[in-house]
Order: sequence, then structure tokens, then C-alpha cells
Amino acid sequence: MLEDLKAVVEATLDEVLPKQGERPAELSEAMRYAVGSGGKRIRPLICLASALAVGGRAEDARYPAAAIEILHNYTLVHDDLPAMDNDEERRGQPTVWKKFGEANAILVGDALQALAYLSLAKAPRNVARIADALGAAGVGVVQGQVEDIAATKDVEYIYTHKTADLFVAAAVMGGLAAGGGDDDIARLQKFALNLGLAFQYEDDILDGDSPYGLEKTEALAKATTDAAIAALEGLPGDVSALRTIAAMLLGRRA
Amino acid sequence: MLEDLKAVVEATLDEVLPKQGERPAELSEAMRYAVGSGGKRIRPLICLASALAVGGRAEDARYPAAAIEILHNYTLVHDDLPAMDNDEERRGQPTVWKKFGEANAILVGDALQALAYLSLAKAPRNVARIADALGAAGVGVVQGQVEDIAATKDVEYIYTHKTADLFVAAAVMGGLAAGGGDDDIARLQKFALNLGLAFQYEDDILDGDSPYGLEKTEALAKATTDAAIAALEGLPGDVSALRTIAAMLLGRRA
Repeated sequence: MLEDLKAVVEATLDEVLPKQGERPAELSEAMRYAVGSGGKRIRPLICLASALAVGGRAEDARYPAAAIEILHNYTLVHDDLPAMDNDEERRGQPTVWKKFGEANAILVGDALQALAYLSLAKAPRNVARIADALGAAGVGVVQGQVEDIAATKDVEYIYTHKTADLFVAAAVMGGLAAGGGDDDIARLQKFALNLGLAFQYEDDILDGDSPYGLEKTEALAKATTDAAIAALEGLPGDVSALRTIAAMLLGRRA
Repeated sequence: MLEDLKAVVEATLDEVLPKQGERPAELSEAMRYAVGSGGKRIRPLICLASALAVGGRAEDARYPAAAIEILHNYTLVHDDLPAMDNDEERRGQPTVWKKFGEANAILVGDALQALAYLSLAKAPRNVARIADALGAAGVGVVQGQVEDIAATKDVEYIYTHKTADLFVAAAVMGGLAAGGGDDDIARLQKFALNLGLAFQYEDDILDGDSPYGLEKTEALAKATTDAAIAALEGLPGDVSALRTIAAMLLGRRA
């Protein structure tokens, strides 16, 4: 089932991104390179699965799904820059600045962010609330990054904004695009916030490096996973795709 | 009259930008610094005046107006970066990267772009078409910049995208937010495209440095100015503010 949803994501990304050779050709090529084609596409899958969870069609959420993936990828392009993390490789390939130059990488990220909003504007309904959700996450992810760089040690703030904000936007946008009611949107919001936090705690456990220490992190991972799964109760549609995504992200815990 | 509209712009920017001290405080301070308070605010004035030109209220266009000014300022923050123009001063003050560091300047620009869409989401109607207009301009302005850096010498492409796209988005968003019909939006689009081009030609004439040579640039400036003014014919509302802005930008030509 997730494979079908992933095919929708890839087709929509291909449709929304500038065509290969579209002027300026170097920018179009670099934008496609940045978004790639081999990723797990977790956030857009959450978006499409959230449309199903409110009883709607995945198809209705395809443009917001492409938007959240494009926005996520712009953050990676900018994070990799020499003035930021100075990373030369990502997914085994040269980073965008390493391949296309630093000025182009700044511009590629900027164009991708604009393209994300251009994509969501094609959603079949609730575009104002969808734009609000992505705009809030777009500001939040930067706020989380700034706090992270400043090393303020407020882990909950950083995890909430740097990681969970995009999960929340993905779920909320999917629910809204499929016509979900306010109660359903609130459930999706709670699901995605806890999923994002659990994902981050799991990551810390796998890395063997948690700001909270292993014991507390294990407890937090369990509590947030349980809260995510519990939030799916009461959703009127098919929540099996969201459950599968949670299980995929959180291993045996979900 | 423009003073009243400018007051609406400044009040809305103040409302939409993060409050001084809002967490993370350095980001909030830098975002406010980047948008400033002393600029001419040409683009948001075009947006509000376009609402009046379709017979609507300036108030209805205040959030799109703030959005276009915030988006314009993010492009300046990124243009000034060391990897781009490497400018240390703007409007007689240190540029954002010079004052807050390079990583912060990248992030400030990124957060401002997101904030632009968060602002336009508050428009009272037509948010999907408004987001489409700003998203298209947000991509276009980068395309123009990439061609400019690549020195392809296609002046019309560069001027259209680097300069006129934001003028067009400003006018179209203002008309849409105030409920303008398709014919009115087309007139505003034509007005703003020509105004943007005329503004750029005038700039070349003042600089004494035009890619077309003085004689041809004078002729282009006159033709585009005339086309801009002619496009105002048939708009159902009060076009006096748009006329005043054109006269302000284009000196005695308009």
C-alpha cells in the first residue's frame, strides 16, 4: 500500500519540479538533483496517509505532499552549505553546493521553498489553512535550527521545531486537503507531533547519544509512540497507512 | 494618500513579524532588522493601491502587501551574502550577514520567505490564487538571478523575472484580495509588468549604464511607461494611488 502512495509522491514531484532543460537549465537541473528520487519520502507519505485517515482520497493531498517534501529538501540544501554544516556528501552523492557551487545552492534552496507553496496552491480545498500550516512549519524549522546552533540545550524545543513541525504540517495538510473536520485535524496534529518526537528519540537511542541519557530517552520514546498511536483512535477513515508508517519509523515499538 | 497606505504596510509588518524578544530572540531581532522600517515600500504600496483600483478596500490586501515586502527583503538578505554579492552595507547599515553572521543570514532569509506565505494565508479571499501568484514570483525572482549571475545577456528575461515578477505579484495579489474579476487582474498584471520594466530602464538611464545603449533604453522606458498607464484604463475603482506610485517611480515620464 505504501508503494502505491509513494508512486503518487514521485509522479507529483516530477510534475511540479521544473522540467529538465527548463530555463535556466542549471537551476532546473539542480532543483531536481536536490529533491532526488531515492528518498524514503516519509513526510509526503504521512500527508497522503492522513488524507485516507480522515476518510478522503490520497489524490486530494498530492500537491501538499509534494510541497512538504520539497520544503524538507530545501532545508537540507541550506543545512549542507559551508557556512552551516559544511557537508560535502548526502545520500552518497555530492551535496548541492559541492556540485553546483555555493551561490547556486543558496538560490536552489530559495527556489525550492517558493515551489513548495506554488505546489500547495493546487490543493482542491482549504488552501488558506494549508498555506498557514506549511508557513508555520517553515518558520518553526528555522527557529529550531537557530536554537540548535546556539546550543541552548532546550532539547524539547529543538526536537519539536526542527523535526516534528514538518511532520505536523504534513499530517495537517493531508487532512485539510481531503476535507477533514477540526476534530480530525486535531487528532492528526497530535499523532504527528508525537511521531516526530518518537522518531527523534529513537534516532538518539540508535546513535547511542542522547541528551537525556539512555534510560530517560527509552521512556520518552515509548511514551510518545504510545501517544501517537492513541491519537489515531476516532479518526473516521482508514488509518492503516499511518500505522504502517509509524511502525516503519519506530521499529518494533509502534 | 500614499502616507495612509504606508501606515497600513508598517502596521501590518509589525503585526506579522516575530515580536522583539520572541524566541529565538536573535532570529526575531534579525528578521525585524532585515525588513527594517525606513524603506519606500514600493511593492506593498502597489499591492494596496491595486485593491483600490479594482474598487475594493486597501485593508483587504494588507496581509499580501506585508507578504510581498517580506519576500522582497529575504531576497536582499540572501543577495548580500559573501557567496553572492558579498555586500557589507545596505541602506547605510551593516547587512544582515555582517551584523548577525553568515549562517544566521541564510536562516533569516529562509524564515522570512516562510513568513511571507504565513502572512498571505490571512487574506480574506482567493488565497489559493494569491499563493500561486507569490509562489510563481518567488521562483521567477530566483530564475532571473541565476540568469543574471550566468551573464547570459538576455536582458529582457532578467529584467522580467528579477524585477518585474515581484511587481506583478504585488498588483495581482492586491486585486485578488479585494475581489477583483479576471479582466481587472489581467489589467493589473499588464500594468505591473510594464511598470517593473520601465523602473529598470529608468534605473539604467540614471546609472548611465544600459545594456541597450542610451537611445534604445530611452525608447523602451517611454514605451513601457505608456503601456503601464494605458493598462489602468477600464479598472473599475480608484486608480489614483497606482498613478501616483508610477509617477514616483518613473519621474516625469508617467
